Amino acid sequence: GHTRVDLERECRTGAPEVIFGERKPAEQIAEIMAAVLHASGRALATRVSGEKAAVLMERFPDARYDAGSRMVAVGEFPEPPGDAYAVVISAGSSDYSVAEEAALTLEFLGSRVQRLYDCGVAGLHRLLDRLDVLRGASAIVAVAGMEGALPSVLAGLVKCPVFAVPTSVGYGASFGGLAALLAMLNSCANGVSVVNIDNGFGGGFNAHLVLCSMRGHRHS
Amino acid sequence: GHTRVDLERECRTGAPEVIFGERKPAEQIAEIMAAVLHASGRALATRVSGEKAAVLMERFPDARYDAGSRMVAVGEFPEPPGDAYAVVISAGSSDYSVAEEAALTLEFLGSRVQRLYDCGVAGLHRLLDRLDVLRGASAIVAVAGMEGALPSVLAGLVKCPVFAVPTSVGYGASFGGLAALLAMLNSCANGVSVVNIDNGFGGGFNAHLVLCSMRGHRHS
Amino acid sequence: GHTRVDLERECRTGAPEVIFGERKPAEQIAEIMAAVLHASGRALATRVSGEKAAVLMERFPDARYDAGSRMVAVGEFPEPPGDAYAVVISAGSSDYSVAEEAALTLEFLGSRVQRLYDCGVAGLHRLLDRLDVLRGASAIVAVAGMEGALPSVLAGLVKCPVFAVPTSVGYGASFGGLAALLAMLNSCANGVSVVNIDNGFGGGFNAHLVLCSMRGHRHS
Amino acid sequence: GHTRVDLERECRTGAPEVIFGERKPAEQIAEIMAAVLHASGRALATRVSGEKAAVLMERFPDARYDAGSRMVAVGEFPEPPGDAYAVVISAGSSDYSVAEEAALTLEFLGSRVQRLYDCGVAGLHRLLDRLDVLRGASAIVAVAGMEGALPSVLAGLVKCPVFAVPTSVGYGASFGGLAALLAMLNSCANGVSVVNIDNGFGGGFNAHLVLCSMRGHRHS
Amino acid sequence: GHTRVDLERECRTGAPEVIFGERKPAEQIAEIMAAVLHASGRALATRVSGEKAAVLMERFPDARYDAGSRMVAVGEFPEPPGDAYAVVISAGSSDYSVAEEAALTLEFLGSRVQRLYDCGVAGLHRLLDRLDVLRGASAIVAVAGMEGALPSVLAGLVKCPVFAVPTSVGYGASFGGLAALLAMLNSCANGVSVVNIDNGFGGGFNAHLVLCSMRGHRHS
Amino acid sequence: GHTRVDLERECRTGAPEVIFGERKPAEQIAEIMAAVLHASGRALATRVSGEKAAVLMERFPDARYDAGSRMVAVGEFPEPPGDAYAVVISAGSSDYSVAEEAALTLEFLGSRVQRLYDCGVAGLHRLLDRLDVLRGASAIVAVAGMEGALPSVLAGLVKCPVFAVPTSVGYGASFGGLAALLAMLNSCANGVSVVNIDNGFGGGFNAHLVLCSMRGHRHS
Amino acid sequence: GHTRVDLERECRTGAPEVIFGERKPAEQIAEIMAAVLHASGRALATRVSGEKAAVLMERFPDARYDAGSRMVAVGEFPEPPGDAYAVVISAGSSDYSVAEEAALTLEFLGSRVQRLYDCGVAGLHRLLDRLDVLRGASAIVAVAGMEGALPSVLAGLVKCPVFAVPTSVGYGASFGGLAALLAMLNSCANGVSVVNIDNGFGGGFNAHLVLCSMRGHRHS
Amino acid sequence: GHTRVDLERECRTGAPEVIFGERKPAEQIAEIMAAVLHASGRALATRVSGEKAAVLMERFPDARYDAGSRMVAVGEFPEPPGDAYAVVISAGSSDYSVAEEAALTLEFLGSRVQRLYDCGVAGLHRLLDRLDVLRGASAIVAVAGMEGALPSVLAGLVKCPVFAVPTSVGYGASFGGLAALLAMLNSCANGVSVVNIDNGFGGGFNAHLVLCSMRGHRHS
Ligand SMILES: Nc1ncnc2c1ncn2[C@@H]1O[C@H](COP(=O)(O)O)[C@@H](O)[C@H]1O
Ligand SMILES: Nc1ncnc2c1ncn2[C@@H]1O[C@H](COP(=O)(O)O)[C@@H](O)[C@H]1O
Ligand SMILES: Nc1ncnc2c1ncn2[C@@H]1O[C@H](COP(=O)(O)O)[C@@H](O)[C@H]1O
Ligand SMILES: Nc1ncnc2c1ncn2[C@@H]1O[C@H](COP(=O)(O)O)[C@@H](O)[C@H]1O
Ligand SMILES: [Mg+2]
Ligand SMILES: [Mg+2]
Ligand SMILES: [Mg+2]
Ligand SMILES: [Mg+2]
Ligand SMILES: [Mg+2]
Ligand SMILES: [Mg+2]
Ligand SMILES: [Mg+2]
Ligand SMILES: [Mg+2]
Repeated sequence: GHTRVDLERECRTGAPEVIFGERKPAEQIAEIMAAVLHASGRALATRVSGEKAAVLMERFPDARYDAGSRMVAVGEFPEPPGDAYAVVISAGSSDYSVAEEAALTLEFLGSRVQRLYDCGVAGLHRLLDRLDVLRGASAIVAVAGMEGALPSVLAGLVKCPVFAVPTSVGYGASFGGLAALLAMLNSCANGVSVVNIDNGFGGGFNAHLVLCSMRGHRHS
Repeated sequence: GHTRVDLERECRTGAPEVIFGERKPAEQIAEIMAAVLHASGRALATRVSGEKAAVLMERFPDARYDAGSRMVAVGEFPEPPGDAYAVVISAGSSDYSVAEEAALTLEFLGSRVQRLYDCGVAGLHRLLDRLDVLRGASAIVAVAGMEGALPSVLAGLVKCPVFAVPTSVGYGASFGGLAALLAMLNSCANGVSVVNIDNGFGGGFNAHLVLCSMRGHRHS
Repeated sequence: GHTRVDLERECRTGAPEVIFGERKPAEQIAEIMAAVLHASGRALATRVSGEKAAVLMERFPDARYDAGSRMVAVGEFPEPPGDAYAVVISAGSSDYSVAEEAALTLEFLGSRVQRLYDCGVAGLHRLLDRLDVLRGASAIVAVAGMEGALPSVLAGLVKCPVFAVPTSVGYGASFGGLAALLAMLNSCANGVSVVNIDNGFGGGFNAHLVLCSMRGHRHS
Repeated sequence: GHTRVDLERECRTGAPEVIFGERKPAEQIAEIMAAVLHASGRALATRVSGEKAAVLMERFPDARYDAGSRMVAVGEFPEPPGDAYAVVISAGSSDYSVAEEAALTLEFLGSRVQRLYDCGVAGLHRLLDRLDVLRGASAIVAVAGMEGALPSVLAGLVKCPVFAVPTSVGYGASFGGLAALLAMLNSCANGVSVVNIDNGFGGGFNAHLVLCSMRGHRHS
Repeated sequence: GHTRVDLERECRTGAPEVIFGERKPAEQIAEIMAAVLHASGRALATRVSGEKAAVLMERFPDARYDAGSRMVAVGEFPEPPGDAYAVVISAGSSDYSVAEEAALTLEFLGSRVQRLYDCGVAGLHRLLDRLDVLRGASAIVAVAGMEGALPSVLAGLVKCPVFAVPTSVGYGASFGGLAALLAMLNSCANGVSVVNIDNGFGGGFNAHLVLCSMRGHRHS
Repeated sequence: GHTRVDLERECRTGAPEVIFGERKPAEQIAEIMAAVLHASGRALATRVSGEKAAVLMERFPDARYDAGSRMVAVGEFPEPPGDAYAVVISAGSSDYSVAEEAALTLEFLGSRVQRLYDCGVAGLHRLLDRLDVLRGASAIVAVAGMEGALPSVLAGLVKCPVFAVPTSVGYGASFGGLAALLAMLNSCANGVSVVNIDNGFGGGFNAHLVLCSMRGHRHS
Repeated sequence: GHTRVDLERECRTGAPEVIFGERKPAEQIAEIMAAVLHASGRALATRVSGEKAAVLMERFPDARYDAGSRMVAVGEFPEPPGDAYAVVISAGSSDYSVAEEAALTLEFLGSRVQRLYDCGVAGLHRLLDRLDVLRGASAIVAVAGMEGALPSVLAGLVKCPVFAVPTSVGYGASFGGLAALLAMLNSCANGVSVVNIDNGFGGGFNAHLVLCSMRGHRHS
Repeated sequence: GHTRVDLERECRTGAPEVIFGERKPAEQIAEIMAAVLHASGRALATRVSGEKAAVLMERFPDARYDAGSRMVAVGEFPEPPGDAYAVVISAGSSDYSVAEEAALTLEFLGSRVQRLYDCGVAGLHRLLDRLDVLRGASAIVAVAGMEGALPSVLAGLVKCPVFAVPTSVGYGASFGGLAALLAMLNSCANGVSVVNIDNGFGGGFNAHLVLCSMRGHRHS
């Protein structure tokens, strides 16, 4: 009754509606998932707890749940065309789940991904070591909590757009990710834009749009 | 003495250092401008007051000053290759100067631009009228103050990345652009990323990076 | 001992005191409910947990509990006079409980309601499809979380007052509904006023007052 | 070039576009004013400084400027039909300019107004003295700075909707009107909704919409 | 080991150290309580959960626990000299526990108290009814959540100091009591001073100090 | 026209209305001053600029202007009865104007004052040197900016109520006095209550009320 | 897989990577601990819950867990050279766990510590009593919640650097330690610098660096 | 009259009182300067405008004014003993004045300084180029505005304490330096502590204290 799934979204924006699972009961997620699956051949839900995931896996036998990113996916993911790729890079090991949300979103949407995790600026060599992979990317998703310095350092070293994802990792004056968010918005390096705190999904989605445009088939 | 211009930046990131004119005296801007001009053949300074601009125009006879966006440019702008373009769209007529900062940045960097100004969501037809231009774009810079709703409405209608630029236009509970900034960070539409309040330059820069990747010559 | 129910409120303001159930023990709610019921013939309590509701249903056999909106109502609701109606419209499916609080408040007070749920601006057609219902309304309650753009878009399309209800749906930089609240307060469209975050009750109450004045019997 | 006046707004929403004069140069205001005047027979601009007003009065000889509310009006105001009226009430004498913005907006739109100024709750008799005028109103605009307690006290005494307008009057922990804004959003009295800080225009506009609906000709 | 009780405090400031029970384990509270009891003949602990209270009651057989205010008291309270009294007044029934913390603090310190609960400004008669009791008081502790308007209305009606205690009662834009706190700090009525959110203890303590000075034996 | 002076305030609350001069034109202040003078025999205005003061001194030949506290007083101040006194103590020399506002308010209302200025906690001896004067006071107004530590240290050393006045002295993370305000609200010492930032007037008013109650003639 | 321990950190910065245990599962902590232990001969983890600690103690038989500070240490601590020492001083007994985190960090890194706990400014003698110990220190870590006044008072009495650690002890307007943080940043006493809220580790680390430099072997 | 200079401060804390010139009239600064000069042989004032400086230079013929840092110094600076030095490093050229305040404070207090300006992380080579100078320092003052990433990157590369000074350089979501402040407080690198926004004086003072302890004559 109280849900109107936006089934025309794929044709309008190039990607099916992804289900925001946070406050929805498992049954409602399942219902929307079935509708999206029917329209698009695959479906993705974010912020799904383990318990809700169990209900969904029962309902959709081929569903996969990734406990790290708390995502449930059903259906075949598209094969990435060409060899262009996005990098998902994270600062600390506690940023793992947000980074993985970004990486899986890219794969769900049909983009190739390289993961570079735990490369924070307090140990700069971990970043400088991988400059070749970073410079080969067509878009970068940079995930960091605490002081959120990673995107600034990165963007001074590469030519592609950097989508910065602040995380709520930290305590005290991190104010739930606000410190990292503000740092990223004030980046003195060019080519950084920012999505919501812990929004790995949004970071991945934007990087995918850049890869699409690069492949030249974005408007098809 | 106390400035070290980052002259290798163009080769590292694809674009020369753009000068942030806000707190710098005219003489210091001129000095940096000369260095950048020498290294890159063109130079751009943002947030330059009319008085400082006068000093710069005396020093660089071919400098152009745009009073709306408060930018000073010297040297030839590159001719945009191909017919791909970015759209710069703004919500209210008071957002003009920020929007123009984005548009001129794109042109300075060598990208083609279409301007769609004063198309806020309170008169939705002004936006829906121009869907063809919007859907033809490879990247969109969406500039809005007050409640910052424009990027959300837009991103549900197009396939390319939308770079949202909140402005400080408004009063009271707009808190200098904070209301628009938060709205844009929380966009329920996919494909929106955000730059700092009044950062037209950042919006334009990011859109340019997408056009570069599209033209396939981003890494050259 | 420590409660003084305001039993003259109905004659002073046109509506009986509605009970704020959040921090009150079930016994205290029951006690106040009995007093209001005696004075006004019906009673309503908001923010009642399932457990407290069970206690109340035992005490008042004809009580109804709506788990979505967490409201308990006792007594007959007045029949709405005439065919004027308010619309309660919501942006996302997660805003359901707040929207339903508004709708039930209107019905409790004796006003007719049309519900339009899950019509957020990321899929604009869901809103434009129902323009006839929206334009026929005498007052609109617009419920939205995240970036809270719905009231701005709506108010540019209709002639009646729009009461905007921000919700705490969202995460990160939504700051518990602050982003939506600020957006709504800064609406560039005219005819929008705002109530507290998650205050569906307040939205419904205000819409009811407009319907009353419309029916010409507000002061009787 | 960079303004697209929304001339269809009157037929869509019942009222012509009112010009937000804050950041616009006098010439731009004049240009828009002429367009609105041509389409609607009258025009109103808010937040116009004395200097800009002088330019406008030269251009439109029948323009009136009210220095208190900083508004410029051109053209004949409609005669209010019937004897229904709105009250504009203010707490302190420093709230005058915001209150007057509300009152003049109501008159510009064709509604009758009663002004009750300097009636703050620190001297309660000033409010209780005028209960008859307050109870006769069809809508109330309540303007207050500092702790913003006026709407709460009022709404417990009357039956019509109260539109609360917080003002930036105060200092220190008033944080530019934030204290009053938060107080009003948290009103424990029913029937209060809130507009932006210092937005007398919005308060008046909403009150007018209620009077329209009351007169039964709102949809004509 | 890690506690140094300030046993000379009573002689320096006139009152024994009151134990802040929030984060302390029951054993630590008991230990401090014994030390204070030994030095002053009575002891009081605030913010004590039911479980911790049970431990304390076992240890101190004559201890009394008040579940509403979450306070534990041991020892005889001093008899209030003379007939001067403080009023503790609260706005809503949910403010009960904070109000009671204030009232019990006054009694523990040896002052007489009159309680006036659930007298919020939305039903003004509940306050005006008791003007005689209010005007007879030597100090008033005014406890209110939500918009915190009670102290402003009160202070305009009486001659004694009003100690305002904001509470965290409310939701959404009450921001845990911030709305009430700011309102009280900005009171347009004279004679209001403010303590921390939910600090009933502080409100009571200050009122006691005024009664002491009144009795003329404050410095003995 | 738009001012209703509260002339009965003295009989209701014990003190005449004091004029808040901040936003009022000199003429309006003069008008209110005349009315208060007529009703109470003396009048006081706060936050009066030098220019406005000049206008007032012309109008009221016996007016005194204190440039430090920016106050204008007209009429004879009452002679303080008895030898009880309040102390006004300040932390830094930059807090002078706020401290002086408190001291003059006390004198205007008829209370005796001792001033102890520039006694901040960074040089503790400046405070400990004057313990005798502090311990002899019946009420203390403690004025401090920056970290606002003075009231906490003081209240642990004396028995009378301490009214803390945070000032906006400081920069950066003092956020216009917010740091000092929060510190004072969280004082771990008992007997501290707080007024608005820079509200020397409020601090003095509250101290006066305590002295009144002490003198036993508060209700006469 | 997703952790890259920074094993060269000790040689670069003089201290091994300390493990931030907050969000990491026990298994991941154990894995990193083993790697650090292998490289540096000892390892330390902060913010480890009792349950996780149990897992770690099973894995590393010589591990010690301190429940107060929630730290796990493995391996031999270096013997402090010379007799220079740091003081860790705390204001309230509730600050114990943060203070102990600082003290154990100092000991883990090889510095001598003197602990002075529960010496808040509300009972100044507790601080002045220990001036000799304080003046003998080479660095001080000052831990305080609520109003955070301790470092200001201290820094006016000693010659060594004071590292201030705000804690989240408090409620209401302490806003999770923000009040103490701001107070410390605005200290009017010289020689105070600040670390994050509840960051005892950071306070201890900085004090250790000062002791190192003092011992003259910092660069070896 | 209203200033009590803390002349014993040098003997208590090792450094004379430095005059905070922001709100003080030139005459008052001069008066305090004379007193400090007499007691300590030299004097320093911060935040002195050009106009006030002119007055001071007239009064003290050997005074030096540095317009960049807005400091006035009188008297001979002590010769730095030994070759230990502090580094003052800044991120952008707009941070110059704050950095210079730190450097001059160090020199005034008798410490040797190396300046490394305009070395922000967007051009990492500018920092890595100077690792030798950085690693030779005994303390570092790191000055940065915008996203404040410099101290984090630095502290991962050196062994001495880093005193981070956030600046108000930036706009929009920098919120007057708040973004940089929060970033620095949340630094994931060890050995960073933070002073107030734009407090170059504080950064320099702390670095000096470390050099003192290093030289072993800190307590003399
Ligand atoms: N983790 C996420 N963060 C932000 N947006 C999301 C997330 N997951 C799904 N969405 C978007 O949320 C919207 C669905 O909202 P709803 O109607 O509440 O399910 C769609 O536009 C999704 O693309
Ligand atoms: N003082 C005001 N406060 C809020 N909105 C206003 C005000 N004055 C005019 N407006 C609205 O602002 C919009 C015009 O914005 P702009 O295109 O910038 O002129 C119109 O929708 C007006 O109705
Ligand atoms: N509920 C309360 N709110 C504020 N302060 C309190 C409260 N209860 C006790 N105190 C004060 O807290 C201090 C004790 O702090 P602690 O050393 O942590 O026990 C004493 O000064 C008490 O007077
Ligand atoms: N720029 C500055 N920032 C912070 N504190 C300062 C500054 N300049 C001087 N001070 C300190 O401010 C205090 C003087 O305050 P005042 O009594 O107002 O002059 C002394 O403790 C100084 O050491
Ligand atoms: Mg790591
Ligand atoms: Mg417009
Ligand atoms: Mg939906
Ligand atoms: Mg008045
Ligand atoms: Mg009640
Ligand atoms: Mg001083
Ligand atoms: Mg204690
Ligand atoms: Mg630079």
